[in-house]
Amino acid sequence: MNIAEQVVTIAKNAREASLIMARTSTTIKNDMLLNMAIALENSAPTLIAENRKDLETGQQKGLSSAMLDRLMLNEGRIKGIADALREIAALPDPVGEVTKMWKRPNELMVGKMRIPLGTIGIIYESRPNVTADAAALCLKAGNAVVLRGGSEAIHSNRAIAAVLQGVLKEMKLPEAVLSLIPFTEREGVLEMLKQEESIDLIIPRGGESLIRFVVENSRIPVIKHYKGVCHIFVDQSADFDKAEQIIINSKTQRPGVCNSLETLLIHKDVAAEFIPRIAATLTALGVELRGDDAFCSAAPIAKSATEEDWYTEYLELILSCRVVDDLDAAIAHINRYCSLHTESIITSDYSRAQRFIREVNSSCVMVNASTRFADGGQLGLGAEIGISTTKLHSFGPMGLEDLTTTKFIVYGDGQVRE
Amino acid sequence: MNIAEQVVTIAKNAREASLIMARTSTTIKNDMLLNMAIALENSAPTLIAENRKDLETGQQKGLSSAMLDRLMLNEGRIKGIADALREIAALPDPVGEVTKMWKRPNELMVGKMRIPLGTIGIIYESRPNVTADAAALCLKAGNAVVLRGGSEAIHSNRAIAAVLQGVLKEMKLPEAVLSLIPFTEREGVLEMLKQEESIDLIIPRGGESLIRFVVENSRIPVIKHYKGVCHIFVDQSADFDKAEQIIINSKTQRPGVCNSLETLLIHKDVAAEFIPRIAATLTALGVELRGDDAFCSAAPIAKSATEEDWYTEYLELILSCRVVDDLDAAIAHINRYCSLHTESIITSDYSRAQRFIREVNSSCVMVNASTRFADGGQLGLGAEIGISTTKLHSFGPMGLEDLTTTKFIVYGDGQVRE
Repeated sequence: MNIAEQVVTIAKNAREASLIMARTSTTIKNDMLLNMAIALENSAPTLIAENRKDLETGQQKGLSSAMLDRLMLNEGRIKGIADALREIAALPDPVGEVTKMWKRPNELMVGKMRIPLGTIGIIYESRPNVTADAAALCLKAGNAVVLRGGSEAIHSNRAIAAVLQGVLKEMKLPEAVLSLIPFTEREGVLEMLKQEESIDLIIPRGGESLIRFVVENSRIPVIKHYKGVCHIFVDQSADFDKAEQIIINSKTQRPGVCNSLETLLIHKDVAAEFIPRIAATLTALGVELRGDDAFCSAAPIAKSATEEDWYTEYLELILSCRVVDDLDAAIAHINRYCSLHTESIITSDYSRAQRFIREVNSSCVMVNASTRFADGGQLGLGAEIGISTTKLHSFGPMGLEDLTTTKFIVYGDGQVRE
Repeated sequence: MNIAEQVVTIAKNAREASLIMARTSTTIKNDMLLNMAIALENSAPTLIAENRKDLETGQQKGLSSAMLDRLMLNEGRIKGIADALREIAALPDPVGEVTKMWKRPNELMVGKMRIPLGTIGIIYESRPNVTADAAALCLKAGNAVVLRGGSEAIHSNRAIAAVLQGVLKEMKLPEAVLSLIPFTEREGVLEMLKQEESIDLIIPRGGESLIRFVVENSRIPVIKHYKGVCHIFVDQSADFDKAEQIIINSKTQRPGVCNSLETLLIHKDVAAEFIPRIAATLTALGVELRGDDAFCSAAPIAKSATEEDWYTEYLELILSCRVVDDLDAAIAHINRYCSLHTESIITSDYSRAQRFIREVNSSCVMVNASTRFADGGQLGLGAEIGISTTKLHSFGPMGLEDLTTTKFIVYGDGQVRE
């Protein structure tokens, strides 16, 4: 079989196995995850040896030290991967939940029951932990999973997948519920993205170029987010101490991630008082400020922002800053430039807090809280499989529930339609 | 402007207007729908005159009398369209509902709030009532809508859209929340399907060829169902009277629709007793039976079914019939041949009823009820915008709620991430 045929076979087998996974009990799924955790820990020497091959190839190819670090497995990291599986085992099983049930005038009982999506494809880059993490979330939600990791991590990914499949075999679960595309050729991904009869959803995890490649080539629905241009609006009634702490946290705690702050909007009535203070604080923390005219005149240290700055996800210590006339202007700016990720208002005014919550249509809208909370774990989803900034199916950080759908269930007693 | 440019402009204006629609109050939206109902009734003479142009063209083109009937508007039908808008006005507004809210250990309150999807594109065929119906559902859920009806109904659709837009104008709502692509050229649809920056969701309403055309050409997510190969399984414990009534209703009440019965599965233990009876009843009602060997030997009137019959949506008085060994075999048959639409078990056994409900992954799974209940109105959704047999976003009949998504809302008091 050539590559395309093998990918088609993997996807078809996954589809068939997904029917068995869909009706596997919570107890068996949890035992499976706990066994996988132990098996990974027990296989640490093999995993580290296989990982070393990837690291050597990476060094020869001249990967950056940051990338090599992301790729690297050691005892501690393997323990971390195993513990993540134990955490997923501890989460409630979403499958089978009846989310609603109502009675019709003809006494039919109609409800909605949560069921797995079916088969989920995960396409990711260098971190080998995704092989275990993402697979565990898909399986816990009763799905089959088809993994396609980056070529840099192919030996590590194969070794991890083999350990997990060993547990499936031991437990007499179909091994095809977890498969790894074993090729590094691009043809393998392209073929995978055509299997709309076998794969229900594709989740790409990686940089914007990976995601764009997947979106452009997929016939299967893709859940994605390209970037996070997150905003904070400091309202005229804001508590300055809280505002300062939230801005510092949102911008500087981990500037390289998608839920960090990129644009600060400040109400004109507090501009003269708040801007010099926040500008001094942020500058002292090494943040470069780019402001509109009103901001720059209150904070001469700031550079002038260009139109492009308002659209930019810096992912480093740079912040766009703008003075706005009122809440309407703040919301209008956000609606125009945001990426539907996360926006927060700092205010002590009840009505404006509620208006901001209602009228900003981003996937996370916050009052008096750091944008850094826009994360599945922080919001209480238990674990995060990804984040969606498109509105279909899921919007915002996605947990186990987002790997399911609901079907209608109808209990009758002989009813027919008149 | 050429056609493509005009479609791009319509979509962009819809996107912009959708932001206003998203925050329009329930009261104003309901007043708008009630005013639209009155305006349509008051414009009956104009609508009928414009409709006559479509009917004349249709006659010249040789449309079938069934198609001409679907196209035709008269006073009674216009009253029906107006009443449908009044029913939509009476439905609860899904926008703004907080579907869940929980507290995090750091006292953050995290919830999910229902918001509109944004802009919805509807692509449909000959019935001009869809212009008002589908538009009203989209608007009630706070969305903008871009309509593209069939060329046979272009004058009727334009006239209805103009009446509805007149109400928007009178009420000082942005007219761009409801627009109709005014061209009949295919180029207009193709361009519409490329506006992924402006349109969030496409819902095609019509035959399988229309839907396949839309799916193949769209860059925007499409909610669709191609066909309904619905099954009934008569369990060994079934009440034969109920089984008979449900089968008759499912197959013969309206055989041309997607939720009618296409395949009957019968447990082998009741085959000898039940088959002669149901075969006689169905034959007397004009239903042609196509069975496997076991079915045919109990009902010699039946023809032999081919492998293709199990996949077929007849949409007429033909029924595939098969004898199965047990519930497992019934579920295996359904999982293999069904179109994920609707399946029903007739049983008086508690455990098998529950297993069928859990293990059949179609969008509607029923116990002791007619498949004809798989319909938004019958299930209690209030109104139906379409039906989805793909699992992403919505699965099964779709009502107002399915035209919305949820965002995360977070109420804090100065929390930052540690």
